[in-house]
Amino acid sequence: MSDVFDLATNLIRRRSVTPEDAGCLPLIGDRLSRLGFRIEALRYGEVDNLWATHGAHNAPGQGPLLVFLGHIDVVPSGPEDTWQSPPFEPSVRDGRLYGRGTADMKGSVAAMVVALERFVAAHPDHAGRVGLLLTSDEEGPTNLDGVRRVADHFRATGERIDWCVVGEPSAKDKLGDLIRVGRRGSLSATLTVRGVQGHVAYPEKALNPIHAFAPALAKLAAERWDSGNADFPPTSFQVSNLNAGTGASNVIPGSLTALINFRYSTASTAADLRERAEAILSRHGLDYTLEWNLSGEPFLTQAGGHLREVVVSVCRDLCGLDPEQSTGGGTSDGRFIAPLGAEVVELGPVNATIHKVDECIELTQLERLPDLYQAICERMLLS
Amino acid sequence: MSDVFDLATNLIRRRSVTPEDAGCLPLIGDRLSRLGFRIEALRYGEVDNLWATHGAHNAPGQGPLLVFLGHIDVVPSGPEDTWQSPPFEPSVRDGRLYGRGTADMKGSVAAMVVALERFVAAHPDHAGRVGLLLTSDEEGPTNLDGVRRVADHFRATGERIDWCVVGEPSAKDKLGDLIRVGRRGSLSATLTVRGVQGHVAYPEKALNPIHAFAPALAKLAAERWDSGNADFPPTSFQVSNLNAGTGASNVIPGSLTALINFRYSTASTAADLRERAEAILSRHGLDYTLEWNLSGEPFLTQAGGHLREVVVSVCRDLCGLDPEQSTGGGTSDGRFIAPLGAEVVELGPVNATIHKVDECIELTQLERLPDLYQAICERMLLS
Repeated sequence: MSDVFDLATNLIRRRSVTPEDAGCLPLIGDRLSRLGFRIEALRYGEVDNLWATHGAHNAPGQGPLLVFLGHIDVVPSGPEDTWQSPPFEPSVRDGRLYGRGTADMKGSVAAMVVALERFVAAHPDHAGRVGLLLTSDEEGPTNLDGVRRVADHFRATGERIDWCVVGEPSAKDKLGDLIRVGRRGSLSATLTVRGVQGHVAYPEKALNPIHAFAPALAKLAAERWDSGNADFPPTSFQVSNLNAGTGASNVIPGSLTALINFRYSTASTAADLRERAEAILSRHGLDYTLEWNLSGEPFLTQAGGHLREVVVSVCRDLCGLDPEQSTGGGTSDGRFIAPLGAEVVELGPVNATIHKVDECIELTQLERLPDLYQAICERMLLS
Repeated sequence: MSDVFDLATNLIRRRSVTPEDAGCLPLIGDRLSRLGFRIEALRYGEVDNLWATHGAHNAPGQGPLLVFLGHIDVVPSGPEDTWQSPPFEPSVRDGRLYGRGTADMKGSVAAMVVALERFVAAHPDHAGRVGLLLTSDEEGPTNLDGVRRVADHFRATGERIDWCVVGEPSAKDKLGDLIRVGRRGSLSATLTVRGVQGHVAYPEKALNPIHAFAPALAKLAAERWDSGNADFPPTSFQVSNLNAGTGASNVIPGSLTALINFRYSTASTAADLRERAEAILSRHGLDYTLEWNLSGEPFLTQAGGHLREVVVSVCRDLCGLDPEQSTGGGTSDGRFIAPLGAEVVELGPVNATIHKVDECIELTQLERLPDLYQAICERMLLS
């Protein structure tokens, strides 16, 4: 088959469940190294990251720099016998390539590598620099040792990224029908509400934290945190876990724990949201503690940004689609790159099957992706 | 020492943790049998119950019948090395007898046996009948095979109880300072609220049952179910356990489970409370199910009742105290006897140490209790 198919299937065969890279990164590093890329293997904790760059003046801070960003780790497959074909044995059926990571996002990674190879081969003296940043810690629970740490390394070494294309599967139905031009922030907390334990027959000697929290919970759930703005939907608040009780039916529990999460737009700040949530809890006279965790600030590539315009034009010219320019969905590693001052845009295949059994990518999309990424390189660095 | 001390310590040495009777019941049955009591051993499931009666015309339904009710099972001791003396080795210190079950309620059981022995010996031809009903399933979680089943047996055999003295530890500070003349009912339910599971980043595609339940929970917790009445405090409502969430912080859970409990007065009925709780849930548009469990209806021995008057007079005359006549506290096995048409009154020792480490009874109380129970027999059946 093709270059991109061969590389994608090679990667899919490797069981690179977070944080394992299962040899994916050395394979790609060797390949790009042969074409003159400068390779840095950045290992933090148990996580391998690959940083590959190419350009006439290839040193940190020498711009302009266009980076492709991806991850080679995948989520677990779940029970393998629930798949129609084994998740780590790539299989073609009905015009689709099946396997864990086909869509999220080894297909995109293979396409990026092939696009960079073609671009550098065709334009060895291109302007500026191109880079590929890959991690094996995107799908894990903490993302502590992946792109977050690499971004710190960039700050320390004076590396500066102008534009970043993230290969996350962004499309709804067809390749090119949706790109992401930003992401909401994610602010979480563990809330503990303290009461006084007791026997249900003697409620006057106890303080039920479930009862005490109820009106505040109703207020938090009903609150309109902001109205969003032109680029973002309104901030949303969710309680994902709520637990209280000893298991015994005759004991009033002594405390309650809730995990809360804001997905927030640029219409709010994390500090505002914290303050407003705490004000609601305090107003209800609760004895509580909150442990906050800001896992990602929102980012936005403004309309009119050079990369954003180019990606839209590539979708129009190569896919014949005027892409929706969205800030929806979860978080992505773009949240670590945007604060470096980069324009960040996300373009990848259809995401309908990601994290599911029988994850797949349409072969036409897999074969088309390198063209899109190569066109972005050309329009950004040759004009 | 005394009869009651010897019997109490004999019982305390037996590890009769629910549902074990550890030989307590045959010991008592043999003893009463020798004095002419008719003995029925009623075994249901793994639970032994003892039904002993005495009277000139001693057959089911031949009244009037005065019954003493108690249990010989105890709650577990917890780690024995946290006790000052081993929980199943009765030990006297500072005027108190220490051991598991001393106060709840082997002391009372020993006192009842001794009182009945003395009463029958002094008045072999007393009017009516006296009985002793003991179970080994009062402290367990379900109480299915104890007095509940014995009450069914009484219904089937035409047995009729006029008066019932329960030996549960009722006193606050001094023997005779508080008697129970009723108990609240206990109505429980498992509530399941269904939502739609989803990713916290896409709340519009999910329905968070925690958020949906919050306003209804606030309403349930704030509701005034009734104002109580002359005999009972207001009905109380408590959520003892509340659980929702997958553990993952980025998943909106698909359902929520709560354990709820009413302790209710005779100012409400179980049917009313169920209907009103369901109306609140329905009014909030919730998709829910409720599995109700009525573990005990409220009962009350009206002021002016013969037994109630006699027990009060005994406290006054023998203890020098005008007892508080309370309906507080949890439930007791009296809830199974009252529906048979019996007046039920509870009189026992101080309850400060029950279910705790270093449970104890004051020796003066243990020695005094047989006098109180014997006086009740005399005033009920000799006048």
